[in-house]
Amino acid sequence: MNSLIELLHIESVSGDESSMTDFLIHYTHKRMSTWKVTPEIYFGDDFHDCLLLKFGKPSTAVFAHIDTIGFMARYENQLVPVGGPEIIEGTYLVGNDNLGPIRCKLHSYEDAIYHDFGRPIERGTRLSFEQKVTIDKEFIQAAYLDNRLGIYSALQLCETLENGWVVFSTYEEHGGGSMPFLLNFIQKKAPVKHALISDITWVTDGIQHGDGVVISIRDKYIPRKKFIEKIISIAEKSGVPYQLEVEGAGASDGREIQFSPYAIDWCFIGAPEDNVHTPFEKVAISDLDAMVKIYKVLLEHL
Amino acid sequence: MNSLIELLHIESVSGDESSMTDFLIHYTHKRMSTWKVTPEIYFGDDFHDCLLLKFGKPSTAVFAHIDTIGFMARYENQLVPVGGPEIIEGTYLVGNDNLGPIRCKLHSYEDAIYHDFGRPIERGTRLSFEQKVTIDKEFIQAAYLDNRLGIYSALQLCETLENGWVVFSTYEEHGGGSMPFLLNFIQKKAPVKHALISDITWVTDGIQHGDGVVISIRDKYIPRKKFIEKIISIAEKSGVPYQLEVEGAGASDGREIQFSPYAIDWCFIGAPEDNVHTPFEKVAISDLDAMVKIYKVLLEHL
Amino acid sequence: MNSLIELLHIESVSGDESSMTDFLIHYTHKRMSTWKVTPEIYFGDDFHDCLLLKFGKPSTAVFAHIDTIGFMARYENQLVPVGGPEIIEGTYLVGNDNLGPIRCKLHSYEDAIYHDFGRPIERGTRLSFEQKVTIDKEFIQAAYLDNRLGIYSALQLCETLENGWVVFSTYEEHGGGSMPFLLNFIQKKAPVKHALISDITWVTDGIQHGDGVVISIRDKYIPRKKFIEKIISIAEKSGVPYQLEVEGAGASDGREIQFSPYAIDWCFIGAPEDNVHTPFEKVAISDLDAMVKIYKVLLEHL
Repeated sequence: MNSLIELLHIESVSGDESSMTDFLIHYTHKRMSTWKVTPEIYFGDDFHDCLLLKFGKPSTAVFAHIDTIGFMARYENQLVPVGGPEIIEGTYLVGNDNLGPIRCKLHSYEDAIYHDFGRPIERGTRLSFEQKVTIDKEFIQAAYLDNRLGIYSALQLCETLENGWVVFSTYEEHGGGSMPFLLNFIQKKAPVKHALISDITWVTDGIQHGDGVVISIRDKYIPRKKFIEKIISIAEKSGVPYQLEVEGAGASDGREIQFSPYAIDWCFIGAPEDNVHTPFEKVAISDLDAMVKIYKVLLEHL
Repeated sequence: MNSLIELLHIESVSGDESSMTDFLIHYTHKRMSTWKVTPEIYFGDDFHDCLLLKFGKPSTAVFAHIDTIGFMARYENQLVPVGGPEIIEGTYLVGNDNLGPIRCKLHSYEDAIYHDFGRPIERGTRLSFEQKVTIDKEFIQAAYLDNRLGIYSALQLCETLENGWVVFSTYEEHGGGSMPFLLNFIQKKAPVKHALISDITWVTDGIQHGDGVVISIRDKYIPRKKFIEKIISIAEKSGVPYQLEVEGAGASDGREIQFSPYAIDWCFIGAPEDNVHTPFEKVAISDLDAMVKIYKVLLEHL
Repeated sequence: MNSLIELLHIESVSGDESSMTDFLIHYTHKRMSTWKVTPEIYFGDDFHDCLLLKFGKPSTAVFAHIDTIGFMARYENQLVPVGGPEIIEGTYLVGNDNLGPIRCKLHSYEDAIYHDFGRPIERGTRLSFEQKVTIDKEFIQAAYLDNRLGIYSALQLCETLENGWVVFSTYEEHGGGSMPFLLNFIQKKAPVKHALISDITWVTDGIQHGDGVVISIRDKYIPRKKFIEKIISIAEKSGVPYQLEVEGAGASDGREIQFSPYAIDWCFIGAPEDNVHTPFEKVAISDLDAMVKIYKVLLEHL
């Protein structure tokens, strides 16, 4: 789990993901000699801060977003949210501007948010939750499990993947915007019929820690029934523990596949977390294990 | 009107439209020998559950969505809406899961919705309004006139159509998502400049039962004035009774044409209904007749 | 500033921009002999009411929307907003229908809006704010500075531009819809990596009249940090006065670039105004000057 700990300490608030991209490019080059299949690698200015790995002859693509929620400095000591972070009085935030490193506390007052840093922070500076990782036998707790675990699971998949795209997308927490050009590229280079969203979902009254990886039948958006049934049937045969989610809200990179100009079936599959979008997101390690396993099974059988 | 009665009894809640697609494919193969022009037919996995009919050399496409609003079983006895159904205490709902057929009543309590079925319903199971069709000399009343009448009108159009696309789309009631790939295909195969949305709209303070088919000048979205004027001018000459709608809300497959990467003019044209998104939607038969007629005229003169 | 005064007196509420398009086509043909580079000109039915000018070998595109907010006549004496106009009791509105010219006053009552014209106005008729332009040494005040100033600035840019697209888009005030097909055309004809949105923003607690052109770090949507930093660095060296905006709301044609299938970096750059979406929008002339200047600098150095 060393690579996961590393992932958790990289700051990449939406729109400023290049540190994470650099890490992933470096990781890929270092590790791919041990992978079963050597992927074609696509990144650089034509892909903004995204990274695509093409293994063999893909019919399925796996997407993991590499950005996180956070905050941006506005005027005076005001902050504007990036994505939808929970606003918790006194939360420690960190970042950097041209004057140096920043560590400050969040305060909220009448629906507005402020920082208490001892000097003005340059306009547009991004701030992240201060990271604190806790791991015991049962649980991992940290900021940004959403979506460091999705990235981690996708990287585990790379080790044995024979055919498929593994794609690291940006901006997801703030409305998206990289998926359309990623899909455009994928469908021209080596088109797919299926997409899986490697991301983290919610513990709710129907989804519990320890009951397995979540296959999402719907969130705010609804994938096609035929495809969900195919996935459930493969999962059922695999013996990997899974649970079925039915929500009326929430969205993922799947949304942009649904509305893309391609007939690609999609499904969100990932471990559930508690304390969503707080500095102490919490996931059961057995659910993360099931997540890693189900992706290996699905990419073989879809 | 036998085919309309059949259409009204097929369940196809958004994301699970394959029964309707199968019906339409069968209907087309059975009837097309009597049609003036034999269309090219496109369907299958590359089109998800959509169906496209290409007649002659098209400059206009007609879109009718084949999905309906409904409900999906969540956890315990909870339901989540699909699209925007009216929540009416005691409404009968029907469906099927792996344990058999389902008939139950809807209950609402503090903004949540429940069913009263005697056993748990499998997660993700879709439920529809129980169908009851009533037809007299003046009116037809049933669940899902929206958009069975739009499909019916499009099928009537097929009988005499010489040039044009007739397209059956999916997911419309729940945010859309098939239009982008349908438009991508159409613009590559035989591109169009105009699109008409064959769908059902609302009786309001400016739109009355019996006053003719509705030409919508705007809903939440605004088609181009030049195109609307052309349509009104053709309608005016035709003698078919019509009324003009101006609304600030509501949307249709036209929305996805507006935001598509093609400069295609669009307009929503359809009969108005009362009791929108309830089990007892109501449309004047004379308005449906006018709808069928105006499409024949427009496809000839646009 | 004569051309600006002319621009301000043309009515072009979203969906009915053809008068403005005609003016711009005429203007271009009249003036382009004095421009440093003669552009290729694209307009006509394939572009709806948009106009594109291609200068040399573009790597950047500048977008200025030519539509305005306004109102549309509904039933009886009701009005529906087009875009988001401020509703100010007693505001004078003007327009035309088939019965002749219209001048009336706006009234609001319980969240609905009405006009007081002496006869019914034809359904779907667009009404604009009555125009009144006031210019002194420091300020210009008028209806529709948003986005007549953006158009004006783009036209000034044309005089010396060597390489770049200058694009006049439609529908922006009402959700957009021309950008996707404009981008599709641009990326096929002469693709770009950068887009600048020539539009007018807001005076707020961090943005003041007279402090220079606004470079927007974010509005509701967030452009990529790397690109914003490049723009700020060019602006800094240029000596043109500028100020940095960080907002949580508001959107522009940049939104549709963010969600396009192309990896195009974008940034909103324009003068700030007070009294947004009222008949008396107000902009400092020095900020407009800075806007004109920064575009010339950026198109040379990006």
